[in-house]
Amino acid sequence: MKDIAKKVLSGDSHAIARLITLAENNDPSAIAYMKDIHPHTGKAHVIGITGVMGSGKSTLIYELTRQYRKHGKNVGIIAIDPTSPFSGGALLGDRVRMMELAMDEGVFIRSMGTRGMLGGLASAVYDVVEILDASGKDVIIVETVGVGQAEVDVIKIADTTLVIIVPGLGDSIQTLKAGVMEIADIYIVNKADRDGVEQTVAEIESLVDISCSGKDRVTPILTTIAKQGKGIKELIKEIENHEKYLKKTKEFDVQRRIRYETELIEIIRKRLMNFIFDEEQFKYRVESLIDQISKKEIDPHSAAKEILSKILK
Amino acid sequence: MKDIAKKVLSGDSHAIARLITLAENNDPSAIAYMKDIHPHTGKAHVIGITGVMGSGKSTLIYELTRQYRKHGKNVGIIAIDPTSPFSGGALLGDRVRMMELAMDEGVFIRSMGTRGMLGGLASAVYDVVEILDASGKDVIIVETVGVGQAEVDVIKIADTTLVIIVPGLGDSIQTLKAGVMEIADIYIVNKADRDGVEQTVAEIESLVDISCSGKDRVTPILTTIAKQGKGIKELIKEIENHEKYLKKTKEFDVQRRIRYETELIEIIRKRLMNFIFDEEQFKYRVESLIDQISKKEIDPHSAAKEILSKILK
Repeated sequence: MKDIAKKVLSGDSHAIARLITLAENNDPSAIAYMKDIHPHTGKAHVIGITGVMGSGKSTLIYELTRQYRKHGKNVGIIAIDPTSPFSGGALLGDRVRMMELAMDEGVFIRSMGTRGMLGGLASAVYDVVEILDASGKDVIIVETVGVGQAEVDVIKIADTTLVIIVPGLGDSIQTLKAGVMEIADIYIVNKADRDGVEQTVAEIESLVDISCSGKDRVTPILTTIAKQGKGIKELIKEIENHEKYLKKTKEFDVQRRIRYETELIEIIRKRLMNFIFDEEQFKYRVESLIDQISKKEIDPHSAAKEILSKILK
Repeated sequence: MKDIAKKVLSGDSHAIARLITLAENNDPSAIAYMKDIHPHTGKAHVIGITGVMGSGKSTLIYELTRQYRKHGKNVGIIAIDPTSPFSGGALLGDRVRMMELAMDEGVFIRSMGTRGMLGGLASAVYDVVEILDASGKDVIIVETVGVGQAEVDVIKIADTTLVIIVPGLGDSIQTLKAGVMEIADIYIVNKADRDGVEQTVAEIESLVDISCSGKDRVTPILTTIAKQGKGIKELIKEIENHEKYLKKTKEFDVQRRIRYETELIEIIRKRLMNFIFDEEQFKYRVESLIDQISKKEIDPHSAAKEILSKILK
């Protein structure tokens, strides 16, 4: 096994950061290392956290991480959200707390962009989860804004998905109806010191009543005030309950399978697109086909067919 | 030329709807029709409208469409937003207005999901733009929520992109900073009867000052009260100005080229993914590889490599 892979397995932060960078840059060496570490993955519990801007995701992650650290657990944090404090934006107070986490050897934070060059989300996120998992992180938290397709794809990585709602934001409930519902394993009504918390909980309850009728698990709804650390212990308890439920039923294997399927699709997509649009031999032909489409000499579907006929067996 | 393509070119609404459905369903016959109509495309001006939920996008589109109709222009509307009133959600008042538009022979409305089976946005959106363009629509309005990668991709179709902001929503400005800025051709501060409109305009102005310094076009900032129809004529004037600017400079050709490039990439991506994950011969092998990944017998990158070696020349 290569030195860097060994170091990752021992939890060395520099090696982790180095391998993530190699993976993000599509460095060919990363593939060999990823192969070495794959047998050592699958132990970490992956928590997806999604919610609109201003719902307090980052503060919740901060408090959650502190609690996990008190229990002696190692935590990895992946922020797939350009506006997240973990990504360097945000207010001073947030940044100070993030720094505090970043100083802790048992915590590894990585921020990633959502924008891939050829569409799709930063596919390296799957690699980052594998790397942090192999490095001995007990819990990996993946933060997304949670609205677009990219976010829904990311959520497929998670074992337990938390959806954060804030009282009084009509938007949040609308978002739920629009599809986030299907992915929630636990609802969190954060900023529960605000007006309208009972009404928000009641609204989610009625949605849960419909979506969980006939199922053997009813999605729990928790209230938290992340800024004051309130409700965090209860949240950790619920995450543990969900993990137990997953392992008791066949759900855990089903979810892991979905994760690997999503990862495989994404790797194939990225490789094919790089093959077509980065290789010198095709690049020139693609450029000239785009010219022809612009001049109406060929239509996009016929152009696609021509390129595919050149590369497919 | 096939009958359905001829009918689309004559503006027949039933034929338009039929061809869109064929394209959405990846029906092989659609490709032949798309080829027939491609030489007749490129005349419509495509307007992208993006903004967070509650910013009044739909109302603005309604008023914009009414104005265009008064000028005798035909309008196509594509809503890529599951929470849009055009997609059937929303309040009764909104739905009534959408119905009014839907009754007008000179208006064609289509709502589309953002979720593709194998990731990526509904790629048929490119086909829909081509179909509406070929059918003689003078203006095509594409509505997105404007936050995720899917939305940014869609915006690449547009000749003129409108970004809607609402006074007092800190979120909106944050979104701008997070990347929407690069795509705005015109800013609209809607709901301009609300408090804080001057401050919001000032904030956008200072962002524009930075992003447009040294450029020969400064992104205009308009205020509208879409519900009262205020500012709509001015907006149409600015869209015309932008169209003139595009055609005067080389920008128009550059943008159209980006559109075709994005479309070509998307068609190729979709075809390849369908090829690998839908064809009987690969489907079985992909399934068994996912099993092997779960059992740690193979890693995802090696699995991807194996599949690709089977299909690539």
